[in-house]
Amino acid sequence: MFWLKYYVTSKVMSPRTSRRSVLRISLPGSQAIARADLLATEEPLGIRVGGQALTLTMRTPGDDLDLAAGFLVSEGIVRRAADVARIRICAAGSCGHGDHDGDGTVADVELSPEIPVSPALRRNFLTTSACGVCGKASIQQLSVQSGCDLNADRVRVRPDVLAELPERLRAAQRVFSSTGGLHAAGVFDADGRLLCAREDVGRHNAVDKVVGWALREGRLPLAGCVLLVSGRASFELVQKAVLGGIPVLAAVSAPSSLAAELAQEAGLTLVGFLRGRSMNVYTGAGRVAVG
Amino acid sequence: MFWLKYYVTSKVMSPRTSRRSVLRISLPGSQAIARADLLATEEPLGIRVGGQALTLTMRTPGDDLDLAAGFLVSEGIVRRAADVARIRICAAGSCGHGDHDGDGTVADVELSPEIPVSPALRRNFLTTSACGVCGKASIQQLSVQSGCDLNADRVRVRPDVLAELPERLRAAQRVFSSTGGLHAAGVFDADGRLLCAREDVGRHNAVDKVVGWALREGRLPLAGCVLLVSGRASFELVQKAVLGGIPVLAAVSAPSSLAAELAQEAGLTLVGFLRGRSMNVYTGAGRVAVG
Repeated sequence: MFWLKYYVTSKVMSPRTSRRSVLRISLPGSQAIARADLLATEEPLGIRVGGQALTLTMRTPGDDLDLAAGFLVSEGIVRRAADVARIRICAAGSCGHGDHDGDGTVADVELSPEIPVSPALRRNFLTTSACGVCGKASIQQLSVQSGCDLNADRVRVRPDVLAELPERLRAAQRVFSSTGGLHAAGVFDADGRLLCAREDVGRHNAVDKVVGWALREGRLPLAGCVLLVSGRASFELVQKAVLGGIPVLAAVSAPSSLAAELAQEAGLTLVGFLRGRSMNVYTGAGRVAVG
Repeated sequence: MFWLKYYVTSKVMSPRTSRRSVLRISLPGSQAIARADLLATEEPLGIRVGGQALTLTMRTPGDDLDLAAGFLVSEGIVRRAADVARIRICAAGSCGHGDHDGDGTVADVELSPEIPVSPALRRNFLTTSACGVCGKASIQQLSVQSGCDLNADRVRVRPDVLAELPERLRAAQRVFSSTGGLHAAGVFDADGRLLCAREDVGRHNAVDKVVGWALREGRLPLAGCVLLVSGRASFELVQKAVLGGIPVLAAVSAPSSLAAELAQEAGLTLVGFLRGRSMNVYTGAGRVAVG
């Protein structure tokens, strides 16, 4: 198929962007000019655990080890680097497994022998990167899975520090300016120093990549840190922050109602509409050092 | 749990928005003002088919029948109104089924007896609303599932008609202006008349609601129509347009590489960056009537 061939080509060029010819039409008069355009690359990544297909996510290539590791954290399967024995990136069909991987790349994970293939993991065969509550009974269970109590995190962040984070994340984005199509997530310390930034066509993947980086670096839970996401904050992103042990989640745009509810329940500070020189603090305002 | 109680309350007020108190902080000086804020409501909807849990999606309440119907179209399970015998919206636990529905609302679907619980449907128990290729072997299979050949759709749309669609969709959005948190999808005829608009915290849900409306109205495939989505165009949205038989997909923001690849393969016209008085045509430019 053409798109598979293209996949190989685009990998050679640059994994994160793909070149395409586009017809640019402008009114009035409908002048049409053909030109080259850079698109954010989107390709499937299968994630297998212990030889079994766990999920298949559409992601922007790059940092695939981080993505697979972070996905396992977000699903409550692993908590620290030692829980993962090995992650191998291979082409579909070359892992010696079945055919549930699609046509692309596969992250083949072996967990540490101490991590049982629990009911939680088996339930996760029914779950998805976009549906975090699937098969999970309650928010309480979620907090238990995270293995840390955010309420114990007494970090305080100044509003002027928060206000500078979006610009720092944008500066770290190498691709956004060329495609306009990539979400970003970044984790900062309480003084606003960027620890890690990742990009993806999917906001949830960008967050998984950041959390997976932290897992692999032995930095989980990310106590005292701020997670910044481009765009909106959904329930799912709050869940990922909680499971990563991150006490403050800030979003450039609006949170959903359930994001705010879960943040409240879990003791997470949720900041939305972090733009220019203002922000909305929805929950956990005690961590935002006003005055 | 608090968020469950809140769910019931917010349903009484207004299903699509939820009121919350928020601390608005402005620099310099970090003045903090407590005020009420409206958030886009996000809550789980379980979808069951023939008594079995198919998926659980986080969505904005409202048009749940459309969402469930459209999800089944997008997954290639049904193609027309007669394929669905009944959809019932009920509270989790009151459908007489198992416990895979989370704590919220369930759309309980019975398919027509002519629709077998095929391998495709069984595969879909592993799939997700955000991962359209999971368990599906190829784009060719996808085109077969849609039951219609987009290449046969000879509709032509004028650029000045396309340029007006975003404003028409915004005008139809009742909630966006109050929360800033809802995506929208709308389907228009080739003259720019809005046929149906739907909103959701998830862009994919907004599209499923539009396609589900069309299914229930007996209007599938949506030949000769234009689907407009707020934000970006991913692989998944192209897949939904193809399975809905819609020949033109327009997005306000950037498409991904795989969105363009699949659009090319399937004969779909893909328009991106449809803003102000210009647009980019990535594939199927023959349907955009220039000059």
